[in-house]
Amino acid sequence: MALKIIAFDADDTLWHNEPYFDEAQEKFCALFHSYASHQEILQLILNNQIKNLPLYGFGIKGFTLSMMESALQLTQNQISGNIINKIIQIGKDLLLKPVELLPEVEEVLKQLKDNYKLIVATKGDLKDQHRKLHDSGLGHYFHHIEVMTDKTEIDYTKMLGRLDIQVQNFMMIGNSLKSDVLPVLNIGGYGVHIPYHTTWAYEQIDFEIKHDKFKAFESIKDILLVL
Amino acid sequence: MALKIIAFDADDTLWHNEPYFDEAQEKFCALFHSYASHQEILQLILNNQIKNLPLYGFGIKGFTLSMMESALQLTQNQISGNIINKIIQIGKDLLLKPVELLPEVEEVLKQLKDNYKLIVATKGDLKDQHRKLHDSGLGHYFHHIEVMTDKTEIDYTKMLGRLDIQVQNFMMIGNSLKSDVLPVLNIGGYGVHIPYHTTWAYEQIDFEIKHDKFKAFESIKDILLVL
Repeated sequence: MALKIIAFDADDTLWHNEPYFDEAQEKFCALFHSYASHQEILQLILNNQIKNLPLYGFGIKGFTLSMMESALQLTQNQISGNIINKIIQIGKDLLLKPVELLPEVEEVLKQLKDNYKLIVATKGDLKDQHRKLHDSGLGHYFHHIEVMTDKTEIDYTKMLGRLDIQVQNFMMIGNSLKSDVLPVLNIGGYGVHIPYHTTWAYEQIDFEIKHDKFKAFESIKDILLVL
Repeated sequence: MALKIIAFDADDTLWHNEPYFDEAQEKFCALFHSYASHQEILQLILNNQIKNLPLYGFGIKGFTLSMMESALQLTQNQISGNIINKIIQIGKDLLLKPVELLPEVEEVLKQLKDNYKLIVATKGDLKDQHRKLHDSGLGHYFHHIEVMTDKTEIDYTKMLGRLDIQVQNFMMIGNSLKSDVLPVLNIGGYGVHIPYHTTWAYEQIDFEIKHDKFKAFESIKDILLVL
């Protein structure tokens, strides 16, 4: 294996993230529990997020604006400024969440950093992801952070071109089979899946992967068994 | 001059941008003209934008959320869902604006592309800036686009490190003395100022620059005189 560059997804691979979004959505549901069921509200937010992806991309600011739209739809525009303020605050709270590392992450990075060029490859808000990498204290293990507009095959191909990397020397490690693993396998790289206990509905896929450049591990530390 | 890499700012250097924001703010002012003067409303939006920069960074989504906050403050939270919808739409309209190239930009890029590595170095929303570069039809002139969280000396230094570039081989061209020229001169690169007819209040500075690596031109085409 002629591996030179290892990219790590950030949210729910290096640090906790999805539970913060779940908590934010819970707060939103509580504001509107008299308008629709929990499940209906979550579905509405997701629909608005997906509808707005081509305009907003990924991240907390777009999520906040999609919550706002959902609130207007739920109430048929009969909403108070006070509640709008609360939604803005739910978004800001997310942008201020502490960064909690996942177990064994730092140990793995420490072991790999001298033998490979390590990068972070993540979606989300540019400013927020840079803030989280800074606050994580992990910045010095990484050559740099790539905040990607999306994680399709084209996005990975462009990134590798920019970094002057051959795909056969590239491995991506992350918690999303859809974003971190499949597109990388499809262009000829290595893909490693480390599941997180909860996955955003948008990232869920419904089939098994068999591929000679694919590995799935229970814990991030297990990648040291193959590297 | 051992110049190898030339970075172009995007908004108001390659294509028109600030007039779109001005137009968006006009629409906002029209919604709230009975609450405050034009000037007061613009100042309020700017204050909220600056207050929110550490959380939101630059770009249209943060601008939309800052308009929302301004609306709540202007009306003391007495605002209708209908108006909130209009603010969301002002933001979305901005994200859908056509990309109009500035004069002579393409001719300059065509002349430079074989002798230098050209990149775009811009602030703003990640997704939006990638969209604009794509829609501009200029993508093939550039090695890649750097969407930066900010344009301070530290941000430029990090970017150059990532690209393995010595600062003495680097030139930045843009319409903002504050963001495109001063920090680059201060770390040892070349800075070229091409003014745009209007500048966002946040980017304005109030002194003259004299520096042997600084050039100011009326038109982007004039840089061909020195390169």
